[in-house]
Amino acid sequence: MTLLHAIYLIAISAEAASGALMSMQRRMDLFGIAVIGTVAGLGGGTVRDILLGHYPLGWIAHPEYLLFTVGSALTAALLANRFQRLEKAFLILDALGLVAFTVIGCEIAAAANVHVAIVVLMGMVTGVFGGLLRDILCGQVPLVLRRDLYATVALMTGVLYVGMLHFHVNREMATAMAISVGFIIRLVAIRYSLALPVPEVEAHRFEDERSSDVG
Amino acid sequence: MTLLHAIYLIAISAEAASGALMSMQRRMDLFGIAVIGTVAGLGGGTVRDILLGHYPLGWIAHPEYLLFTVGSALTAALLANRFQRLEKAFLILDALGLVAFTVIGCEIAAAANVHVAIVVLMGMVTGVFGGLLRDILCGQVPLVLRRDLYATVALMTGVLYVGMLHFHVNREMATAMAISVGFIIRLVAIRYSLALPVPEVEAHRFEDERSSDVG
Amino acid sequence: MTLLHAIYLIAISAEAASGALMSMQRRMDLFGIAVIGTVAGLGGGTVRDILLGHYPLGWIAHPEYLLFTVGSALTAALLANRFQRLEKAFLILDALGLVAFTVIGCEIAAAANVHVAIVVLMGMVTGVFGGLLRDILCGQVPLVLRRDLYATVALMTGVLYVGMLHFHVNREMATAMAISVGFIIRLVAIRYSLALPVPEVEAHRFEDERSSDVG
Repeated sequence: MTLLHAIYLIAISAEAASGALMSMQRRMDLFGIAVIGTVAGLGGGTVRDILLGHYPLGWIAHPEYLLFTVGSALTAALLANRFQRLEKAFLILDALGLVAFTVIGCEIAAAANVHVAIVVLMGMVTGVFGGLLRDILCGQVPLVLRRDLYATVALMTGVLYVGMLHFHVNREMATAMAISVGFIIRLVAIRYSLALPVPEVEAHRFEDERSSDVG
Repeated sequence: MTLLHAIYLIAISAEAASGALMSMQRRMDLFGIAVIGTVAGLGGGTVRDILLGHYPLGWIAHPEYLLFTVGSALTAALLANRFQRLEKAFLILDALGLVAFTVIGCEIAAAANVHVAIVVLMGMVTGVFGGLLRDILCGQVPLVLRRDLYATVALMTGVLYVGMLHFHVNREMATAMAISVGFIIRLVAIRYSLALPVPEVEAHRFEDERSSDVG
Repeated sequence: MTLLHAIYLIAISAEAASGALMSMQRRMDLFGIAVIGTVAGLGGGTVRDILLGHYPLGWIAHPEYLLFTVGSALTAALLANRFQRLEKAFLILDALGLVAFTVIGCEIAAAANVHVAIVVLMGMVTGVFGGLLRDILCGQVPLVLRRDLYATVALMTGVLYVGMLHFHVNREMATAMAISVGFIIRLVAIRYSLALPVPEVEAHRFEDERSSDVG
C-alpha cells in the first residue's frame, strides 16, 4: 500500500465522520447516517468518474472502501457527544482529505487524456463534491459554495501538482509537495479565517419569488 | 410478460403517484408533477445504471415506461383530493414497489459481475433512490434518511435474494420468496411503526453555521 | 463556426449569468458564483450526456466553454447592481438559450439512435436541467417545476424540430424554424404570464411530516 493510498483511506473516513455529524443534526436514523457518511467520503470521486465516463467506479471495484465510510460514520455517531473535543483533529484530517482527494482526482483525470484545465477541475471536483452532496442531502445550501478558502485550496493544490508534472518533477515528489503545500495553505486559511469575497447585492427580482410559494 | 415485469410496472406507477402527491404539496404545475412522478418511479433504476455504467438506461430503451409514470402522476393529481381514502392501498403498492425494485436492482447488478456486497447495495439504491431524488427536488430532507424501516427492508430483501441465489435456489423461487418476505416485513414495519434508532446529539458547531446566512 | 454554435455560446453565457445572480442572493463567494454559473450553463447538456452515456461530455472535450460560463458569471457578479436595467435583455437571452439548448439536445439524442420520444425528452432535459440544478444547489424548489410555460416551450420546440426532420425538412431550415417559433412562444408566455394549471390539493398526510424535524 502506497502512502497516497493510506492517506486516501484516512481521507474517506474523515469525510464520512463529517457527514455523520451533519446528518445527526438533521435527526437522521442510523441508515441515513451511514448513507450521508458514505456520500461525503466517496461522492467526490464518484461524480468525477461519472463525468469522465471512467468505469468501474472506485468503490464498485473496491467495495471494502464502504467498510471504511460506514464504519467511520457509525463510530462518529457513537462518539458524537464527545466529538467537540476532537474538533481540531477532525478539521486537520478533513484538510488532509481535501488535498489528498484533489491530487488523486488530478491523477485519474490525467490518465484519461483530457485537457490540463479539466485535470485540475477534476481534482477540485474530487476534493469538494463529497461535501457538496452531503450538504444537499441534508437540505442545506452547500457550505463550500459560501465561505472559506476550501475549494480555492483544492484549485491551488491541483495547479501546483499539474504544474510540477508539466516541468517533469517526478510523480512521488510532486504528490508529496502538492499535498504538503495545499495542507499548509488550508491550515493557514482555517487559522486566520481567510475567505474569498462575497459580493454584495441589492434586493432584486428573485426576492419575491423566493418569499412566496415555498412553505 | 413475466410476473416480475408486471410488478415492476405497478411499482413505477405507484411511486409516480407518490411523487405526484408530494409535488402538489409544493404547488407545482402539471409539468412539475409529471417530472417528479417520473423521477420517483424511474430515478432509482437510473442512478443504479449510471453507477454501474450500464447503458442504455431502462427507460431510454423502453420509452413506454414514461407513459406509465406520467400517466400515473397526472391521474393521481386529478384524484388527489379523494386520495386520502386510498392511502392504505397506496402504502401497500409502495411497499410492493420497494421490494420489487430491490430484487430487480440486485438482478441487474449481478449480471454486471460485481462483488456480492455491491449487488445488495445496488438493490437498495434501486429501491430507495427514486424517493430520495423526489424529496430533494421537492426541497425536503429525504424521508428515507430519517425514519422507518424503509431502506432496511430493502437491505433485508436484497440479502435474502442474494443469499438464496448463493445457495442455488432457483431464480424464480428466490424472486418470489424475497418479494414475499420483504413485503411482509415492510407491512409489519408500517403497522407497528418500527424504526431504526435516531442518535441524540447535543448542539454543536454546525448549529451557528446553519442559523445564519441562509434566508 | 455555425450560427447554432454561436447561439449556443450566447446561451451558456446567459444561463451562467442567471446562475450568478441567484447565487449572489444566497451570499455565495466568488467560487460559488463561478460554480453555480457553470452548472446553470452546462448542467443541462451534462445530464443529457450522462443519461445517454454519450462521452466525452461537451465541456470536457471543449474546456473553452468553461471560460464562457466562468467569465460570464463573474462579469454578472461585478455588474449585478446595475443588472435590474438589463433584466429585459437577460430574459430574452435566456429564452434564446432555452430553445437553442432544446434543439441542440434533440440533435445529439437523434444521433444516438434512440426513440423519437426520447429525442424530444433529451431536448427538454438540455433546456431545463441547468436551471433545475442551479436551483437545487441554491437550496430552492426548482422554479421550472412550479410556474411558467418554460419546460412546455422546450417541449413544443422539440416536437416541432423533430416533426420537421420527420417530414424531411432540411436540417438548417428545421433548426431555424424551431428556434424562431419556440423563441416567439416563450416571449409571448413571458409577456402574458401564461402558465400551466397548478392543481389545488387539500392538506393531507405529508403535512405533519414536513412541519416537524426539519429546522
